[in-house]
Amino acid sequence: MSIRNVLFVMCDQLRWDHLSCAGHPHLRTPNIDALARRGVRFPNAFVQSGICGPSRMSFYTGRYVASHGATHNRVPLSVGEVTLGWHLRESGRTLALAGKTHVLPDAHGMRRLLLDGQHDLAALLREGWFTLVDRHDGHHAEPDSAYAHWLRARGYDSPDPWTDYVIAVEDAEGRVLSGWKMRNLRLPARVREEHSETAYTTDRALDFMARQGDAPWVLHLSYVKPHWPYVAPAPYHALYRPEHCLPVRRHPAERGEGAHPVFREFQNEEVAESFRSEEAIATIRPAYQGLVRQVDDHLGRVWEAMERLGRWRDTLVIFTSDHGDYLGDHWLGEKELFHDCIQKVPFLLYDPTAAADATRGTEDPRLVEAVDVVPTILDALGCDPAPHLIEGRSLLPLLRGEAPAWREAVFSELDWTFRGARRRLGLPVGQHYAWMVRTGRWKYVHWTGGLRPQLFDLAADPQEFHDLGAESSLEGVREEMRRRLLAWFCGLKNRTTLTWPEAEFRTDRHKAAGVFYGEW
Amino acid sequence: MSIRNVLFVMCDQLRWDHLSCAGHPHLRTPNIDALARRGVRFPNAFVQSGICGPSRMSFYTGRYVASHGATHNRVPLSVGEVTLGWHLRESGRTLALAGKTHVLPDAHGMRRLLLDGQHDLAALLREGWFTLVDRHDGHHAEPDSAYAHWLRARGYDSPDPWTDYVIAVEDAEGRVLSGWKMRNLRLPARVREEHSETAYTTDRALDFMARQGDAPWVLHLSYVKPHWPYVAPAPYHALYRPEHCLPVRRHPAERGEGAHPVFREFQNEEVAESFRSEEAIATIRPAYQGLVRQVDDHLGRVWEAMERLGRWRDTLVIFTSDHGDYLGDHWLGEKELFHDCIQKVPFLLYDPTAAADATRGTEDPRLVEAVDVVPTILDALGCDPAPHLIEGRSLLPLLRGEAPAWREAVFSELDWTFRGARRRLGLPVGQHYAWMVRTGRWKYVHWTGGLRPQLFDLAADPQEFHDLGAESSLEGVREEMRRRLLAWFCGLKNRTTLTWPEAEFRTDRHKAAGVFYGEW
Repeated sequence: MSIRNVLFVMCDQLRWDHLSCAGHPHLRTPNIDALARRGVRFPNAFVQSGICGPSRMSFYTGRYVASHGATHNRVPLSVGEVTLGWHLRESGRTLALAGKTHVLPDAHGMRRLLLDGQHDLAALLREGWFTLVDRHDGHHAEPDSAYAHWLRARGYDSPDPWTDYVIAVEDAEGRVLSGWKMRNLRLPARVREEHSETAYTTDRALDFMARQGDAPWVLHLSYVKPHWPYVAPAPYHALYRPEHCLPVRRHPAERGEGAHPVFREFQNEEVAESFRSEEAIATIRPAYQGLVRQVDDHLGRVWEAMERLGRWRDTLVIFTSDHGDYLGDHWLGEKELFHDCIQKVPFLLYDPTAAADATRGTEDPRLVEAVDVVPTILDALGCDPAPHLIEGRSLLPLLRGEAPAWREAVFSELDWTFRGARRRLGLPVGQHYAWMVRTGRWKYVHWTGGLRPQLFDLAADPQEFHDLGAESSLEGVREEMRRRLLAWFCGLKNRTTLTWPEAEFRTDRHKAAGVFYGEW
Repeated sequence: MSIRNVLFVMCDQLRWDHLSCAGHPHLRTPNIDALARRGVRFPNAFVQSGICGPSRMSFYTGRYVASHGATHNRVPLSVGEVTLGWHLRESGRTLALAGKTHVLPDAHGMRRLLLDGQHDLAALLREGWFTLVDRHDGHHAEPDSAYAHWLRARGYDSPDPWTDYVIAVEDAEGRVLSGWKMRNLRLPARVREEHSETAYTTDRALDFMARQGDAPWVLHLSYVKPHWPYVAPAPYHALYRPEHCLPVRRHPAERGEGAHPVFREFQNEEVAESFRSEEAIATIRPAYQGLVRQVDDHLGRVWEAMERLGRWRDTLVIFTSDHGDYLGDHWLGEKELFHDCIQKVPFLLYDPTAAADATRGTEDPRLVEAVDVVPTILDALGCDPAPHLIEGRSLLPLLRGEAPAWREAVFSELDWTFRGARRRLGLPVGQHYAWMVRTGRWKYVHWTGGLRPQLFDLAADPQEFHDLGAESSLEGVREEMRRRLLAWFCGLKNRTTLTWPEAEFRTDRHKAAGVFYGEW
């Protein structure tokens, strides 16, 4: 049977190492593990940016951040960019969404092109060509969202039930406390588990799959968890204790005089200071693990529906995350910088066809990137691969036992213009960018604005404690990494207005077009 | 008096060295020279690509080719790109056009955004936000153009008067011969001089300036000459003899075994073969010089109108070209590659304000690029400088005696996908790009696809005959040039959907937006 449907599951801020199939010693994720057994797990999968917006735009366009230009969370994707939803429409399909996308409308572009009205196209552009089953971006109050209405209909009596129930807790005296305050995470959410974000988004996806019947579909099931606010509903808030969590990876050397200035400034942000104490880590990490376990349990419901509907026969399934979470590692909280706990993500791929039988349950160590998702989906559905736009590669050949020449490095980008760190370093607004080049052995980070590079020897220092960016004996390595970065820039796809077949047709064709220059 | 108008004059395919003010010993260009005396001549001005379309899109967007993506003549500018015409509309102005732009509609983008209708916006998008006084792109038949109708109304009785009169000649027996055949250029065009392209486009510009009266305007007066077909009307066809032309710059070393493979293949194209003979050069160069002289004479009419209308008091004037012409130099015809006779262009700038009085009639050796034109115009008119989009810099400070830190290198790009050379080298369709980095001393060309770089020492070899791209002792120079290229890539403006003030406003502002992550 060929592939008729695609289920593209994404978690938000889920670290690669918080799965039992990735070796976590205490956190159990049996349903995610079951998907790994059905398909292939890629333990070396990386995102194109360590923060939601730009990472997701790479997942949704198949293009690097330098190409799509949505460099940070509040930076819209240009109306000139083409997304998976458009590619699918070109072959008569729609791309359904249940959950989060972080897509923002390109207000300037839509105004320039008179597209800022209320028509269907404007609605699609505002959603990056997703067709909404339900959108819930989480992590800020959405009092008019469908989820808020749904909660109120279930008795959560508030103009803003997300703030007052979903991310709120109650102490022993019945006082309502905010889950924004991480000290409160030891208490359960005021929302019942079956009304939590993860449950709600799963319900929407299951409704959609059932409604579709045997009509083909492509669904992005996009959980907002385990992203902060890390408030877990009972019983997940109390499933884990501090001793069930991974050891904190941080080293005094990272706090020293020689620390990279941007890294040092990130260590001075409020979130990093909050994560410095053992108490904070012992409070937050168990809640985070509970949220992961909750997602896994709900994926069990999805797998069961797939079974009941016969969808394991004809559905490609992708499971991944948009980036990780420091959780106190490297003296940091949150995300954005280039350590593996941020840039490396879970990545599982299930191909229902017989061609992939030989690789089921295996791990593939090859380097995978977020930009590979769109080409994999287009390949699975037999759509135009649009090589004039797409910068990633289909992963299906890897599942089907082929051994194509493969990439030796992955690339990720950061726009830190929007961070307080930029102002504290005395830098004016503008472009403040960095690029990571990571091979199996080395991680190199190239900063603009005259800031020195960073370099980590992942063989000798897999925990990334010792920054060799100023080590003079390694200038040759840094030069080699800069060459890789330059080659990557040279390969970006900027000729977006002409397909490759069109380019081939127009090659050396001036005479056919009535232009006879150069004849003597 | 402040600047109220802008006259942006462009020639097509005019070499930097074909002006008397640039030192040509025989070709007289008194009107262009007069502009140089009124303003400043920049003898080190370079284009962003050595071919019309991409070079012009850089002139019209203020962005490098890697950013605007219109990499070759038949590659449309994306609907996502912002041009000078839009910037001017934002301040209530329009950008008028008389002549050529080489703008192509982005058919895919316009279809995707339902903009492919017949409404005003579609018309503007098809013209890259130029408002047409008259468009005449030249160098291919345009039988339904306004120019064709105008010619027919003047007695040129043909369905295609451009082909039959403008670029046709008659031999002694009265046979009509095509000007596409360069051997025929010793004969005059069948069109009368006052009905030629240069005269017609000048007429349209003069009509426009007169119609505007004292209403402010921005006009792009864009001549299609001296671009091929090099047919000159009488008397310009016979003004110059071979001994009045510059010596041909070519050297046996360029034909040798060690020639760069792409350079070698360009030498095998028909146009290069045509230019190999002395007879061809002795036929074509005089006609080319005649066309340049004709443009200069018509610029005299423009200057006279400016005088009569009082426009020298309040009008910024730019004079430049979109690239040069090999004319047999380096064993080549046409353009595209990276020799100075292609990449370096005439560039004159006249600022009417008193602040520029001290620099009138001077030469400024600083490096200027095509991307500087848009920011110069925006600066002159007091428009938003749009630093989130614009990659060039205003030149007004240079005219006004300021000494800002200035660029040390210029950059140009080539997409040679569309050339027969690509097929002859056995390369499939895709991206086949090259980048030039040129400082005062060195010219480095970086090729993709595993092709070796080129390097020229402009101090020791100003004629660019000796390619040092494989000279092992100069690896350090090449490395330095690659560093410059990498830094240039890192500085490209890809965050096009958010202005810098917006980015500043959104910096470190999560709490004001109701997001309280990281609080303990």
